[in-house]
Amino acid sequence: MEPVDPLKMAIAQLKRFPGIGERSATRLVYWLLRQGPEVPAEIGAALAALPQAMLRCSTCGDVSAVDPCAICTDPKREPGIICVVERPQDVKAVDAAGEFRGRYHVLGGAIAPLDGVGPDELNIGSLLDRVGPEAISEIIIATDPDVEGDATALYLSKLLSPLDVKVTRLAHGISVGTEIEYADRSSVARAIANRREI
Amino acid sequence: MEPVDPLKMAIAQLKRFPGIGERSATRLVYWLLRQGPEVPAEIGAALAALPQAMLRCSTCGDVSAVDPCAICTDPKREPGIICVVERPQDVKAVDAAGEFRGRYHVLGGAIAPLDGVGPDELNIGSLLDRVGPEAISEIIIATDPDVEGDATALYLSKLLSPLDVKVTRLAHGISVGTEIEYADRSSVARAIANRREI
Repeated sequence: MEPVDPLKMAIAQLKRFPGIGERSATRLVYWLLRQGPEVPAEIGAALAALPQAMLRCSTCGDVSAVDPCAICTDPKREPGIICVVERPQDVKAVDAAGEFRGRYHVLGGAIAPLDGVGPDELNIGSLLDRVGPEAISEIIIATDPDVEGDATALYLSKLLSPLDVKVTRLAHGISVGTEIEYADRSSVARAIANRREI
Repeated sequence: MEPVDPLKMAIAQLKRFPGIGERSATRLVYWLLRQGPEVPAEIGAALAALPQAMLRCSTCGDVSAVDPCAICTDPKREPGIICVVERPQDVKAVDAAGEFRGRYHVLGGAIAPLDGVGPDELNIGSLLDRVGPEAISEIIIATDPDVEGDATALYLSKLLSPLDVKVTRLAHGISVGTEIEYADRSSVARAIANRREI
């Protein structure tokens, strides 16, 4: 048996990433070879360490190295307000905006009947379980502004309506910095529908 | 001390790759988290294995898991003809074209006085050492068609002229599939200068 060529092996492995093809993978591997030996070793170790150290927070469903996660146990976070997102990376995006200092709940996706994703496949039961014990007064639904995200927001708002909790959704409209001339049609439509008195 | 967050660590490490910023690195890491644990483990292991297993072939200077490399020891390769390239990845590019079945010589760059790269910094001495023992009849210079590559080609051709070896250079002109209308000016200039009788 021919020994495995580490160069070909590294290219084949990098190609597994979405958006990285043969050409990009080759370029990255040859770049690695021009660095000191510690560069591929350190990048490789950080990736290899990912699965062992990643848990799901049993409270909010976010990915985390500890359970419960740092956000759920942070005493400086505003209690009683939860922002519901589809994916773990949405937590990062909302938090980076710096406007919201409450806690999160990660659904793990959105309702998509065509893809076989119903409410039971999502992390919804544990959201309901949080409302009473955590004395939640407001739930902000931050699902994507698409068909699945809209359906999920509607489903959640109906589900939560019997409970004594305010349910809101992120505003959608023309993104900041976009000239109206160049805004996409659906954003303009949402911006008109959601117009506010000034 | 706060324990290192494996998520942040993996993002920080992937950001070291050229062309991968915070946003792409984050996207790749969250993609990894959605895969089975074997995916980051396998990609990580392949990268970490790169430095230990990579040598330089002492004959041609190419990167290789063994010394001498597989190409230098391949008996099916045409003997007596060497293609000189700047970088290891150029070996792959020339070989992929399928037109050349000789052996290679990797200079490790091109002459660039402004960057402090002179002939002594390049793998040129070992090229001269190969001409006699390997009974080389032709050396194809495949340096890049830029100022540094042209200077290197000229330097090598002068250096090799006293030896009984034919020195050629890759043809440059309009790339296959490019309409003349859209070809860049220097390629058209080269194509005219290098025109052939038909």
